[in-house]
Amino acid sequence: MGGTGPVEEALAALPLVDHHCHGVVTSDPTVRRFESLLTEGEAWPGFSAFDSPVGVAVRRHCAPLLDLPRHAPPEEYLARRAELGAAEVNRRMLSAAGTEVFCVDTGYAPDRLTTPAELARAAGGGAVAHEVVRLEGVAEAVAAAGVEPDEYAGTFLAAAREAVAAPGVVAVKSVAAYRTGFDLDPARPSPAEVAAAARRWLARGGRLTDPVLVRHVLWTAVDLGLPLQLHTGFGDNDIRLHRADPARLTDWLHLTAGTIPVLLLHCWPYQRQAAYLAAVFEQVYLDVGLTLHHVGPGRAGAVLAEAMEITPFRKLLYSSDAYGVAEFFRLGALAFRQGLAALLRERVDADELSLPDALRIARWAGRDNACRVYRFSDTT
Amino acid sequence: MGGTGPVEEALAALPLVDHHCHGVVTSDPTVRRFESLLTEGEAWPGFSAFDSPVGVAVRRHCAPLLDLPRHAPPEEYLARRAELGAAEVNRRMLSAAGTEVFCVDTGYAPDRLTTPAELARAAGGGAVAHEVVRLEGVAEAVAAAGVEPDEYAGTFLAAAREAVAAPGVVAVKSVAAYRTGFDLDPARPSPAEVAAAARRWLARGGRLTDPVLVRHVLWTAVDLGLPLQLHTGFGDNDIRLHRADPARLTDWLHLTAGTIPVLLLHCWPYQRQAAYLAAVFEQVYLDVGLTLHHVGPGRAGAVLAEAMEITPFRKLLYSSDAYGVAEFFRLGALAFRQGLAALLRERVDADELSLPDALRIARWAGRDNACRVYRFSDTT
Amino acid sequence: MGGTGPVEEALAALPLVDHHCHGVVTSDPTVRRFESLLTEGEAWPGFSAFDSPVGVAVRRHCAPLLDLPRHAPPEEYLARRAELGAAEVNRRMLSAAGTEVFCVDTGYAPDRLTTPAELARAAGGGAVAHEVVRLEGVAEAVAAAGVEPDEYAGTFLAAAREAVAAPGVVAVKSVAAYRTGFDLDPARPSPAEVAAAARRWLARGGRLTDPVLVRHVLWTAVDLGLPLQLHTGFGDNDIRLHRADPARLTDWLHLTAGTIPVLLLHCWPYQRQAAYLAAVFEQVYLDVGLTLHHVGPGRAGAVLAEAMEITPFRKLLYSSDAYGVAEFFRLGALAFRQGLAALLRERVDADELSLPDALRIARWAGRDNACRVYRFSDTT
Repeated sequence: MGGTGPVEEALAALPLVDHHCHGVVTSDPTVRRFESLLTEGEAWPGFSAFDSPVGVAVRRHCAPLLDLPRHAPPEEYLARRAELGAAEVNRRMLSAAGTEVFCVDTGYAPDRLTTPAELARAAGGGAVAHEVVRLEGVAEAVAAAGVEPDEYAGTFLAAAREAVAAPGVVAVKSVAAYRTGFDLDPARPSPAEVAAAARRWLARGGRLTDPVLVRHVLWTAVDLGLPLQLHTGFGDNDIRLHRADPARLTDWLHLTAGTIPVLLLHCWPYQRQAAYLAAVFEQVYLDVGLTLHHVGPGRAGAVLAEAMEITPFRKLLYSSDAYGVAEFFRLGALAFRQGLAALLRERVDADELSLPDALRIARWAGRDNACRVYRFSDTT
Repeated sequence: MGGTGPVEEALAALPLVDHHCHGVVTSDPTVRRFESLLTEGEAWPGFSAFDSPVGVAVRRHCAPLLDLPRHAPPEEYLARRAELGAAEVNRRMLSAAGTEVFCVDTGYAPDRLTTPAELARAAGGGAVAHEVVRLEGVAEAVAAAGVEPDEYAGTFLAAAREAVAAPGVVAVKSVAAYRTGFDLDPARPSPAEVAAAARRWLARGGRLTDPVLVRHVLWTAVDLGLPLQLHTGFGDNDIRLHRADPARLTDWLHLTAGTIPVLLLHCWPYQRQAAYLAAVFEQVYLDVGLTLHHVGPGRAGAVLAEAMEITPFRKLLYSSDAYGVAEFFRLGALAFRQGLAALLRERVDADELSLPDALRIARWAGRDNACRVYRFSDTT
Repeated sequence: MGGTGPVEEALAALPLVDHHCHGVVTSDPTVRRFESLLTEGEAWPGFSAFDSPVGVAVRRHCAPLLDLPRHAPPEEYLARRAELGAAEVNRRMLSAAGTEVFCVDTGYAPDRLTTPAELARAAGGGAVAHEVVRLEGVAEAVAAAGVEPDEYAGTFLAAAREAVAAPGVVAVKSVAAYRTGFDLDPARPSPAEVAAAARRWLARGGRLTDPVLVRHVLWTAVDLGLPLQLHTGFGDNDIRLHRADPARLTDWLHLTAGTIPVLLLHCWPYQRQAAYLAAVFEQVYLDVGLTLHHVGPGRAGAVLAEAMEITPFRKLLYSSDAYGVAEFFRLGALAFRQGLAALLRERVDADELSLPDALRIARWAGRDNACRVYRFSDTT
């Protein structure tokens, strides 16, 4: 695959907008931590994290960037990675990704990660980074700083407004999928309901998991007016997968139609459900980030094919959802380029799609759709 | 694809039974209305409905029927369509579909649509049209005409009996999936429950959405004794997709086993769940109508492959679920023929299936299964 | 397919561990009973069970083992089968499967079936059979023998301990999916709750379907310490498919992490959900048994491809879930070998996977992973 025709060439050369990602670790991870970062789980004793689809994809597609042969053994890969050092590895992987714009979710960082500016610098080539504000993090900071229950809603909104007013912020994100799933009462909670729920939460402490407050987060996103990124589907074992099916958001999408763009992230294995929502709600968009590098280039086309079955061409975006290891930027971009190219070329070869249309769909999905949604100046 | 072997040839020549469809608009739609009809949503400002899988399929496969080149631009397509006029476009698309029998759901018509007889006439070649009675429409007409709550059940049953006694009626349909979804109490409601629910509904008015009355509709279908078509899965944004998963009908299917055939329409993205039901319940059948034209010929084979993984060959039917624009009759038929042919030919080429079996499966799915279920005289 | 390269050759020659199966009928089934055993439903009047994917697979791949041509008609197949007799048919099918180890669920036998030892003998070639104890069967035997509600928990645990102490027992199994589905309270029920539920059940009799007692079965498995096989997804019409989605087990998997291995059986159409669990929970494994022979070799690769999208290579096992007819041992093994080989070869041909890695994945999935989980001596 790759480089065998005009669709492949166009996608290989396309500067991507990665509309949802995270930073990478700035210091050399231990072998155990690296293996853990390779998975959505943990490094398990007796299991090598390389014995997985993403593991073979790293050995196949990232080893050559470290001057190793394709399919290099894990121990050689890890040794060479340590030898080069995190900064050089990050530089090589990120520049190979060919990403021009990063939208970085800065709200999840159990590791010391690059800032958005550091990430863009590592990518080189004039890449720029924007920021995505995770709303649950803002709410939890408000609670941690101390607030009266009656003032929680106002203080949260003010704090969120301040956070999104910072330079470079282009969107907000919610992890409601993790906290309660999407079987929420879709209605905007009343001030009294929010105050009562805040009272309970502030007394108890801990993460924001109260269903009233989680849906209040979603409605606060509407008040902020920026595009809202929503985790859906695949994640670590803190998710309840079936409750993260985006179809369960339908009532809320009806109530918020005409307000903010809603970007469904990841979606797998509910990419068809997400495609349905993107086809019938004007404000809904989707990507299959995170999944792309976990399934690898050998299977990304199959997942994209399902995601695109009925999705309007203006509604599909690219994201890596890379976190921690720079390899994921390389793999996500490669899997997207090769998977989408294979799928489009097959349609062109069957004369189901014209070549100009295929090239347009590739450019839209890889960058233009994101530029429109986030109002970057280089929209086309 | 198409015309490259005996399976393709057989499917290309097969007169289809389209066991579930609607009429087409009789006057020239505006550009905006045409674009809206192309989607399961609406025409959105700033989006072209042609920028979608169904849009490229129309340009690829319908443009040549309007004397335009394949992949003609939307504006040329729309101009030529207006130039020819609705009657001529309908005639060209419908005759190209190669459908011999239409079963027309006449219960949904926000537009002025062809009658079943007009539809058959536009198709030409001696095509015939039967009618499918939408039960919620009958119930709502009974309510609109005025009825005492205690008499609602009897009046509804009598009205439904009268409706299905009309010439050409071969089945009934329910849109319970839209009204409540399938998480219904499966039991037949008691007369007292129905009367109480009817009292509430008649006082309130509006569409039939009461869960007791919706399940009463399903049980009334059992009393009528005709095959019941059930919308499942994909539809417009009035559906809650996850509640339209046909697996949720299992309890009701147990209670009604041995009564009426149940035809699961559309099913996507739950075609595997529908296939499971068709494999384990004698009375259950399925199609992937609506999906076929929305995904287009380039992807219809993949959806059919999932739908057919375990489905007994007597249980798969063809439908277009075309509504409004005649292009969907052309596209649905083409996607079915090409998708099924590619799938069967691949099995024959791999010697997993004999050619006579492949031809038999094609004929059964395309027409004979419907003839059996609906008791058309030309069963084989 | 088959025999066309090193991956195919390796898989064709690999002695399999079939980690979940049942016995086969020991006497010649009637035509009606044979057709019924071919389906997950029943033999329906007017339908031939051969008119299905599994039916054509039997005619294609089993007929030659009975000295008939490929794709032999059903009537010839049935006549030849009767002529050879059950013992000879079983011998031919089982030896063709190339299975070295069988783990036999002995807890479901509406027919007179081979014992594990008889099954291994029919397979020949030194095959060995282990046993899997179905816990609901143990509980129901305890109830049938008479027990005080207060003593139910202790008596059940003692009976289960005795059952698993028998020679050759390597695992336990639960059919909780059939009895309640997986929307269970995940917590271990208290002794008082169990006694109260037992009191209700013992008074009422019948199958074990009480939600408290079903989850008590799952927690008793934890106490026993052996690997737990769990039916998930596809089965006969006694299942409610959506409630058998293994994602619904997530809370219980959190509570029991670090205790026993959990093997998700069948999984279809939730193989991606099962893969997610296998990727994020150390103790979770999966197979796509039962599905393999029902979809047939022509489609097994597609199902395996979904099951393997993110599954760590140590987490996929082989099972046939054959029951009743020896053909399923032949078909399951063939579909697994050919489907996995095609999938791996495609990745090797695309240079996405090295050949040594492909061979290792094949060996792990076909036998080594099962040997590790069940602690068979020939682990590698």
